[in-house]
Amino acid sequence: MPLTPEQQAEIEHSRSETRQTRRVVAEGLETRLYEAVHCLDHGFVRVVDYMGDDSAIVQAARVSYGAGTKQARDDRGLIRYLMRHRHSTPFEMCEIKLHVKLPIFVARQWIRHRTANVNEYSARYSVMDREFYIPAPEHLAAQATSNRQGRGATLEGEEAAEVLRLLRDDATLTYDHYQQMLNQTFAGETIDETRAGLARELARMNLTANVYTQWYWKVDLHNLFHFLSLRADAHAQYEIRVYAEAICEMAKAWVPAAYEAFEDYRLGGAQFSRAGLDAVRRMLKGEEMDAEKAGMSPAEWREMMAALG
Amino acid sequence: MPLTPEQQAEIEHSRSETRQTRRVVAEGLETRLYEAVHCLDHGFVRVVDYMGDDSAIVQAARVSYGAGTKQARDDRGLIRYLMRHRHSTPFEMCEIKLHVKLPIFVARQWIRHRTANVNEYSARYSVMDREFYIPAPEHLAAQATSNRQGRGATLEGEEAAEVLRLLRDDATLTYDHYQQMLNQTFAGETIDETRAGLARELARMNLTANVYTQWYWKVDLHNLFHFLSLRADAHAQYEIRVYAEAICEMAKAWVPAAYEAFEDYRLGGAQFSRAGLDAVRRMLKGEEMDAEKAGMSPAEWREMMAALG
Amino acid sequence: MPLTPEQQAEIEHSRSETRQTRRVVAEGLETRLYEAVHCLDHGFVRVVDYMGDDSAIVQAARVSYGAGTKQARDDRGLIRYLMRHRHSTPFEMCEIKLHVKLPIFVARQWIRHRTANVNEYSARYSVMDREFYIPAPEHLAAQATSNRQGRGATLEGEEAAEVLRLLRDDATLTYDHYQQMLNQTFAGETIDETRAGLARELARMNLTANVYTQWYWKVDLHNLFHFLSLRADAHAQYEIRVYAEAICEMAKAWVPAAYEAFEDYRLGGAQFSRAGLDAVRRMLKGEEMDAEKAGMSPAEWREMMAALG
Amino acid sequence: MPLTPEQQAEIEHSRSETRQTRRVVAEGLETRLYEAVHCLDHGFVRVVDYMGDDSAIVQAARVSYGAGTKQARDDRGLIRYLMRHRHSTPFEMCEIKLHVKLPIFVARQWIRHRTANVNEYSARYSVMDREFYIPAPEHLAAQATSNRQGRGATLEGEEAAEVLRLLRDDATLTYDHYQQMLNQTFAGETIDETRAGLARELARMNLTANVYTQWYWKVDLHNLFHFLSLRADAHAQYEIRVYAEAICEMAKAWVPAAYEAFEDYRLGGAQFSRAGLDAVRRMLKGEEMDAEKAGMSPAEWREMMAALG
Repeated sequence: MPLTPEQQAEIEHSRSETRQTRRVVAEGLETRLYEAVHCLDHGFVRVVDYMGDDSAIVQAARVSYGAGTKQARDDRGLIRYLMRHRHSTPFEMCEIKLHVKLPIFVARQWIRHRTANVNEYSARYSVMDREFYIPAPEHLAAQATSNRQGRGATLEGEEAAEVLRLLRDDATLTYDHYQQMLNQTFAGETIDETRAGLARELARMNLTANVYTQWYWKVDLHNLFHFLSLRADAHAQYEIRVYAEAICEMAKAWVPAAYEAFEDYRLGGAQFSRAGLDAVRRMLKGEEMDAEKAGMSPAEWREMMAALG
Repeated sequence: MPLTPEQQAEIEHSRSETRQTRRVVAEGLETRLYEAVHCLDHGFVRVVDYMGDDSAIVQAARVSYGAGTKQARDDRGLIRYLMRHRHSTPFEMCEIKLHVKLPIFVARQWIRHRTANVNEYSARYSVMDREFYIPAPEHLAAQATSNRQGRGATLEGEEAAEVLRLLRDDATLTYDHYQQMLNQTFAGETIDETRAGLARELARMNLTANVYTQWYWKVDLHNLFHFLSLRADAHAQYEIRVYAEAICEMAKAWVPAAYEAFEDYRLGGAQFSRAGLDAVRRMLKGEEMDAEKAGMSPAEWREMMAALG
Repeated sequence: MPLTPEQQAEIEHSRSETRQTRRVVAEGLETRLYEAVHCLDHGFVRVVDYMGDDSAIVQAARVSYGAGTKQARDDRGLIRYLMRHRHSTPFEMCEIKLHVKLPIFVARQWIRHRTANVNEYSARYSVMDREFYIPAPEHLAAQATSNRQGRGATLEGEEAAEVLRLLRDDATLTYDHYQQMLNQTFAGETIDETRAGLARELARMNLTANVYTQWYWKVDLHNLFHFLSLRADAHAQYEIRVYAEAICEMAKAWVPAAYEAFEDYRLGGAQFSRAGLDAVRRMLKGEEMDAEKAGMSPAEWREMMAALG
Repeated sequence: MPLTPEQQAEIEHSRSETRQTRRVVAEGLETRLYEAVHCLDHGFVRVVDYMGDDSAIVQAARVSYGAGTKQARDDRGLIRYLMRHRHSTPFEMCEIKLHVKLPIFVARQWIRHRTANVNEYSARYSVMDREFYIPAPEHLAAQATSNRQGRGATLEGEEAAEVLRLLRDDATLTYDHYQQMLNQTFAGETIDETRAGLARELARMNLTANVYTQWYWKVDLHNLFHFLSLRADAHAQYEIRVYAEAICEMAKAWVPAAYEAFEDYRLGGAQFSRAGLDAVRRMLKGEEMDAEKAGMSPAEWREMMAALG
């Protein structure tokens, strides 16, 4: 369960209140505000705040005085033009703030995207919760044999059972010892009066990388799309892709025209190299091509042919 | 007049509409939203959108589930603690978007602050307005004799009159020729059918640096404070300080507790060097000090003594 | 002439000295170091310093202990792989510092690339040189009729002559008045003892946007490639493209393998949308396609067909 | 031992070669280049490359044509002026690249400084080394009772012994299981032919946060100083401070004048608030002050009085 009843109540309370504003409002996102979308076994992602909507992109591109929109149709066309020609600054005019609960090893991958604002739960200051990620059996993938960075078939039988047992036992054991070293239960109660307890900033080093942490993460729409193009991709690690896909749904509700353009030109598109373009040209003229004739490496050729279905 | 009647009407229209939102609302800023605060002779700055308020700073610092505030009193204390200890990330959780009309030479100084999002009116694509900054007589400062970067006394009499005349005549002349080269009036009408008209991206080079441009500028609160600490400072050039001071008022209305902490710890504070601290220590013990005894340069000593009143 | 004899002598002096270093050295760039490559009528760009070479990209990608290179052949393959898959962080491990002299209107476009370090010549502090850009007759383009942002045919005859005359006269006149307001000649000599002279930070507003400024600009290779992909592109304004093309030559001499990959995958490549990929697929199966069938706008279709030759 | 004999040999090899360059050379840093400075029990930090030296700061501040230096004395004065007045851009003209081996929990704190370039050893792609940080007994601090974020007295006797035992046993156990799940020894040899082995990107989640990772980290001098001002501070966690202090020595060897200014104005200086300045003023006039009279919180008063010795 990613949320305690108290947390759920706080969220419900935030959702129950509405206020008047003169700002632009994204209706599609308002209904989802604050709500936690579950990810993995104990994680979630939820929108905590946002600024702007599709019209804000148009308004900035035109540096206009009033609301962005004259006609929704023109706006969509302009947004597609901006996306196609990589005019990224108008997309930076929208901003979103997320609250994310995620395993540490996922957080370490996520934070590599530097153009964002982050406030993480501090394990120097606070005690971490006893929650860790254990993959569902269907996500217990073997190492890929062809690709050093990827996943192969799903583990089965005794091997799978043992992996699950090890992950669960080790996370439990190291967390137990974490508490023991702190000489505290989670509620902060001292266990043994004769002991001082190790500093939190040190004890945390005993926790495994599947322990859950939390952060507030704020990013503009241009950088969010860049994040999603890498992390909602089929080659991204499953455990971060789950979050990226949940955020895709949020973006779609928030800025539908921009998201559609993003899907058409980025997620669903492909970049061709000079040699790739040349190969396509020759194929369109009826020539039989292969990697060698095209002057491409086998891997590059395979990737291009996959993009061409 | 910085605004045409049409622009004023668009702003009034935006101000007249309110919507329901579940987001945090900064009441103090809502009443000022969209409104243009006049700066210099034809410029303005206005808030077009914002995200968060004081409670958002606290909420992020605590990575909490509900609204930031338990008690306003605790919040203020936490915000002051964060400001004092330069914990800057919680302040990055608030964001503001401004629409600014400003002379090009001010824009060139402003843009040196890189951690912000900008969309500027494009002189490649559009025709610039015939509006340029002419200083009021009381701001017609002479070059400082002591400080190569500063302003001295105000120019007077015939010299002042001539400077004003030159600025006005040259801006008018170069703008006239800009239009002539474009072979267009501002409304885009062709003047002489036998001429093609120079490309806008070239014709703009004939305009002087006091011509007004416009942009949307979006920044987080931490970086806004950094901008204000440099540009609302007494050593900043008057023409940018006017904007910074107008933005200070907006920030005060938006995040009153954070702004108060900013005033106390940044705007109204001072940094002392190792030598300066040592000198103060010795003065507190009754010793008579001067620059030489303190091992400080005369300029540094003067700056420190000024901070100490 | 972009350089005075004194400046040329300083550059020659810098070029004449060599020192011992344990750092990686890019032989191809060493021979060009400090040398000014002329751009436009009075501008230049020159490499003032650099860090790393192709091997540094490989070394960072492998987080290795020794020099990057085992075999130049493997390195080239890895660099191409990184470029193709947009693994941008290893390219950030190379850095270059340029000294650029450029017209203000070009500088204003250039500075929109924010992920770089900049130190510009200060017109608050110093007096600007009397140098301004006047286009060569063959670059005196008319406004494009089809594209609001572009250039059309070259102006000719009387219209061209008048444009050149206006540009030259106005830049000269406003510079003369700039000096008059400062009450100084360029060497800093006072002209009229009875006058105080306007502050430099104010007088500069009388200068036109074709006056030359200078800056030091430092950027990592990933962000340099992004800059070049936009500014060395055929759609970039000619006056900035000249600089970008000069920098392309420098990059080629500095990191030949990375530059080759950049040319193949970025400069010479093209991004296809979802609809574009689908259209190519159908064309490869022999179907006759057009914009409408493909569900693409005429402009997008035209752009894709241009990429396919 | 932080380095294997092979790694040590690679480093020695890099150190043994020198090349000719026309670039600025920082003699003080050349002698230390590539050399690993040991930090904690298995970590290190070493300079892999650098760009610029003190003269480069001066050169950029003056936007000059030749080398920065006329007279070393003037340069030092200018550098101090720039530091005192927070003119940060000239310091951004120097860049340094470090190779760091550090425990994951230190890396997580370090990466919060976002304005830097990073390439980390990939645990998706490669197998992590069996090396983890175990604090020396004298750094086994208890949780501070007064400060939720700090360290108190050193643990002793049985409690200390047990903490060390737990840390060591848990890191060993989880690493053993990591290898078992991978079905590989470190050299990549399969242990049990009947098993597929869990994907590396999953198995890594079983490792504790004291396991060592590595990265290349590249940063400009301004941002390096900001990092050092926070992490070489007495309030920083010991485990990151060790690295920061080692880097301070490197910076001192690289840019001695800039480092001296940094020490005088940042490390050894202090920021006073408006209320603090007022209190000092009154104390200098002979008034007896305390927190209440000064209108400061007890904590703030205490911090100020500590700065004043």
